[in-house]
Amino acid sequence: MGEEIAVIEGDGIGREVVPAAVEVLEAFDLGFEFVRGEAGDATEEATGEALPAETYDLAAEADATLFGAAGETAADVILPLRDAVDSFVNVRPAKAYPGVDALRPETDVVFLRENTEGVYSGHEDRLSEDLSTLTRVVTSSASRELAEYACGFIEDGRGPAGDPDEGFTVAHKANVMRETDGRFRDEVLSVADERGVDADEELMDAFATKLPLDPSQYGVIVCPNLAGDVLSDLAAGLVGGLGLLPSANIGHENALFEPVHGTAPDIAGEGIANPTAAVLSAAMLLEYLGHIEEGQRVRDAVESVLADGPRTGDLGGSATTDEVTAAIVDRL
Amino acid sequence: MGEEIAVIEGDGIGREVVPAAVEVLEAFDLGFEFVRGEAGDATEEATGEALPAETYDLAAEADATLFGAAGETAADVILPLRDAVDSFVNVRPAKAYPGVDALRPETDVVFLRENTEGVYSGHEDRLSEDLSTLTRVVTSSASRELAEYACGFIEDGRGPAGDPDEGFTVAHKANVMRETDGRFRDEVLSVADERGVDADEELMDAFATKLPLDPSQYGVIVCPNLAGDVLSDLAAGLVGGLGLLPSANIGHENALFEPVHGTAPDIAGEGIANPTAAVLSAAMLLEYLGHIEEGQRVRDAVESVLADGPRTGDLGGSATTDEVTAAIVDRL
Ligand SMILES: CC(C)[C@H](C(=O)O)[C@@H](O)C(=O)O
Ligand SMILES: CC(C)[C@H](C(=O)O)[C@@H](O)C(=O)O
Repeated sequence: MGEEIAVIEGDGIGREVVPAAVEVLEAFDLGFEFVRGEAGDATEEATGEALPAETYDLAAEADATLFGAAGETAADVILPLRDAVDSFVNVRPAKAYPGVDALRPETDVVFLRENTEGVYSGHEDRLSEDLSTLTRVVTSSASRELAEYACGFIEDGRGPAGDPDEGFTVAHKANVMRETDGRFRDEVLSVADERGVDADEELMDAFATKLPLDPSQYGVIVCPNLAGDVLSDLAAGLVGGLGLLPSANIGHENALFEPVHGTAPDIAGEGIANPTAAVLSAAMLLEYLGHIEEGQRVRDAVESVLADGPRTGDLGGSATTDEVTAAIVDRL
Repeated sequence: MGEEIAVIEGDGIGREVVPAAVEVLEAFDLGFEFVRGEAGDATEEATGEALPAETYDLAAEADATLFGAAGETAADVILPLRDAVDSFVNVRPAKAYPGVDALRPETDVVFLRENTEGVYSGHEDRLSEDLSTLTRVVTSSASRELAEYACGFIEDGRGPAGDPDEGFTVAHKANVMRETDGRFRDEVLSVADERGVDADEELMDAFATKLPLDPSQYGVIVCPNLAGDVLSDLAAGLVGGLGLLPSANIGHENALFEPVHGTAPDIAGEGIANPTAAVLSAAMLLEYLGHIEEGQRVRDAVESVLADGPRTGDLGGSATTDEVTAAIVDRL
């Protein structure tokens, strides 16, 4: 028996793009055992819970999880799921592909986003009629664990340049959040120094100006949680939208893979969603499980289809999800 | 005697672009009394303080302040100066101009950034060897005051569309920061509703994707403090960089005006800095003091020079700061 893959489609186009990604995975005959779980708005309506305990447990116990998207309940689903796989880093590549209309075709970056703390640890209080607070948390341990991952990522040549000498950039706001982002920045830079990996730093606001002006100056970017959320979504705008961006939530024992896009209620149910982000998430899943060659074959097939194959409406074509998926499988 | 204008050049190109802006202001003969103050890295070196009390008091007492930029000490200078003028909103227009190479030439937006709280209230604690926290603060009173300002801004036709019907967008992250950004979002939308101003909302990460994809769908954007910092800097990347962006920190009795750019150490002292952002900040100062026609004349002169006048190196020209300033004054 092969690895157990939890499959959680969620809502909206999640129900269309996740099956497409599963179809691509099945093409390899790796003996995966797919186990389905429910989560999202519809699940909440049916069961009272956006993320039932059995779905949480499923993700926690599977070797890897493929998740689609959730609607209004997105935060109630994805944040606990990241916790279920004990994820400490969210890997978010943003790459422009030949054949796809991109504002900055030279964009090829990977965000390594801290995935457990910052404003996401979520201690909020209503202290008075007028005033609420949120306690933002930064630990040296989480910052260093992220940095160790980033160094391994670079050393293994997994950065966009594929070159262990390329180094990374830490984006932060330590000039204002001196103690918390200062700690983050200092720990990340100190791990890089210990491991002999090149690292420089950039204020996150300056980064937001400079990335659109010249994305080619960046490769791997290491960020606190919310900075990684916003800056990687900015990069999505430069490569032509969210329809292409996969992501991986890496934990200690297992991991969860999801397209960066949402449920796209405007087109959900019509069978015309772009499966690319979900299929590329499946490629990251393959690589995570050690099926490096298969992952690369998926990437190559996706790139080939983007270049001259059928395309969905978001990319100016009129192909269906099934047609694009069949073309990808065909070119594997 | 006319109004008292505090002039704080700061460091780097602040010492070049602020005099240019003062030259433009002086061209109108409005009887302004200019009073100089020192702040920044050099001041810290000389006096031990980046922002001496007399400079703080100068800004607090002047009718308006023109500030340049500060280097390493930027946060130690600008955050207290915003406090000196009791500023509750940071107004940040980002507009692409004909003749200037912009990634998105259709960009014409104004950010209204909350200017007192969020992560900037700055309560940070080192709770253990491993852990630091920051207490992020959001009050209904500050959120409502910002929203009232935004509604007046729209009603006066000061938004990019110039149309009191245009409305605004609130950008926030209330799906994660439910209590704090939830409070912000709810209060801002409720004030808009009371005043009959159209308002919609957007998650700040989705906004970061959508702004580069299509800036023409946005006009006035109302944000919490850090969101406004990052998203307005992102807009700077779409209009061709920070060299063009002015800003106003509006308080109850007075206000402070500053270019969004920094000290540009690489070109400081050479007399080749682009004075546009500082001059446009002076235009905002004129308008704030009720000299609406003069403000408009400055804007028109700047646009005219950008279109076919001398330009500095950042815009692909080779003119000096003085030459550009003379051209602006000439076309007033
Ligand atoms: C849905 C939301 C909680 C989530 C986040 O902020 O992490 C999303 O924006 C993402 O980036 O996956
Ligand atoms: C220097 C820094 C404290 C400041 C800020 O974060 O507000 C700057 O980035 C700005 O936007 O004016």
